[in-house]
Amino acid sequence: MAGDFQTGLKAAQAATETLLVRLLTDTPVDGAWPERLLAAMRYSLLGPGKRLRPFLVIESARIFGLAGEGVVRAAAALECVHCYSLVHDDLPAMDNDDLRRGRPTVHKAFDEATAILAGDALLTFAFAILADPATDPDANVRLTLVTELSSAAGAGGMVGGQMLDLAAEKQKLDDGEIRAMQALKTGALFRFACDAGAVMGRASAEKRERLARFGDALGLAFQLADDLIDATGKASKAGKATAKDADRGKATLVGLHGVAAAQKMLDEAVEQAIAIVAPFGARGAMLADAARFAGKRDA
Amino acid sequence: MAGDFQTGLKAAQAATETLLVRLLTDTPVDGAWPERLLAAMRYSLLGPGKRLRPFLVIESARIFGLAGEGVVRAAAALECVHCYSLVHDDLPAMDNDDLRRGRPTVHKAFDEATAILAGDALLTFAFAILADPATDPDANVRLTLVTELSSAAGAGGMVGGQMLDLAAEKQKLDDGEIRAMQALKTGALFRFACDAGAVMGRASAEKRERLARFGDALGLAFQLADDLIDATGKASKAGKATAKDADRGKATLVGLHGVAAAQKMLDEAVEQAIAIVAPFGARGAMLADAARFAGKRDA
Repeated sequence: MAGDFQTGLKAAQAATETLLVRLLTDTPVDGAWPERLLAAMRYSLLGPGKRLRPFLVIESARIFGLAGEGVVRAAAALECVHCYSLVHDDLPAMDNDDLRRGRPTVHKAFDEATAILAGDALLTFAFAILADPATDPDANVRLTLVTELSSAAGAGGMVGGQMLDLAAEKQKLDDGEIRAMQALKTGALFRFACDAGAVMGRASAEKRERLARFGDALGLAFQLADDLIDATGKASKAGKATAKDADRGKATLVGLHGVAAAQKMLDEAVEQAIAIVAPFGARGAMLADAARFAGKRDA
Repeated sequence: MAGDFQTGLKAAQAATETLLVRLLTDTPVDGAWPERLLAAMRYSLLGPGKRLRPFLVIESARIFGLAGEGVVRAAAALECVHCYSLVHDDLPAMDNDDLRRGRPTVHKAFDEATAILAGDALLTFAFAILADPATDPDANVRLTLVTELSSAAGAGGMVGGQMLDLAAEKQKLDDGEIRAMQALKTGALFRFACDAGAVMGRASAEKRERLARFGDALGLAFQLADDLIDATGKASKAGKATAKDADRGKATLVGLHGVAAAQKMLDEAVEQAIAIVAPFGARGAMLADAARFAGKRDA
């Protein structure tokens, strides 16, 4: 069925993971990679993961009739950036997490230096994937992807959001500040994911903007759902330690407004996301179903 | 005088630093960057530095008659990558250095989390600089720069070399292994610097390869000179703690072969570098003088 999120997500997972294995096995285009470094990159990239951001790239492109290896390459590049951010965020100097997706974090399974370098290498590799002609025959499309990913992942995007998040452990943020922080930390990559599909699909500026706004709304929904799971869920289901946000004084909308109010905000974000892709009709059904899933997930 | 290294280096410093200030002040193209993150990025990028890699980009391009802001942008992007690597290398989990260029390292002046994120942001920013049309009007030239920088900085380049260097603290490397490690850790960015100038200067494949080989030889020369300074120099001159390599059991050619033999290798690398650019005649004089400088520097 065309708009079934779980089916679409499984397909995106399979395609992305197959390509990531190939990129980390066959490729080493630039000579041998040190064995332990490659092992840590593989541990991070190929462990269990929802592959939600790759799904968004792939399904956003499909709205414009585009499918194939190029799209999956862009999805894989984004997953490299997402995984690098998890590796660095988990470090002792950052969130100091021992467990991620039910397994020891990279610095626990390997060591801190290897985790720092594996993260650095994953981030660097993402840009090589995007710049390769196999991603898109049009040089300007590849450059747009490089520019937008750099913007979404950098100081004005994800890394900036992580910085604000760490600062928030020391000073209380208000509603607007939490939303601004999360829009960078989580939202920027969701936004990029949807925009990247539109860019590769040669979408009009108006449709690119529409997809990007869907990414914003979906990012907010998934962040709210994550925070609700942390506040109310069980570690076994989440695959990681829960109730840590409150212990650390992490700034979340759940912490500020309470579970009931946050659940209402989640429902609203889901409705908003569905409304944004409604003009795409049946072609937007898969993304709408992803938003619906965000509203009812419990792990 | 056309081939005076110190004059050329000062000009490259001035041009690169002026542009870096502008990029980190006027630009924030993608919204406000968190103040403390930007401060750490500026602290790393705008502190004292030789700007040797930017010099190599600028002077390699000049061999092909190219000068101007685009070349300086490529030089600035490379300096972002170099500075990020210093920030991460200095971290407690890596080399654990408190002092860099005579000042507290970033994690000492700020904190570890900020240092990790500032490094991540600098690396990410480098690709945005290269992908911008202001760097070169030809999309394919910009993509080549992105691809080559990713290769030089990543798991098959600088990061891979750092990984091998850390592993070498536990197991003794032989001559070939030390050279292979240093070719990645230091050599890859030197090679990229010279190649980038050639790429932007529309050099032939043969001339690109010649410049890249010059970068290899010069990288080896500077690494040997660095290691000789560490083994014999004074901290006040080097601007950082010295005699640390031996204390840590760092793998260096000086440690393996002794000071006299390493000095001879340095002299040979300098001669080799000079010979490689000799076919460029007067246009290669500045790079030849850079190699000569590497052979006689003492700090």
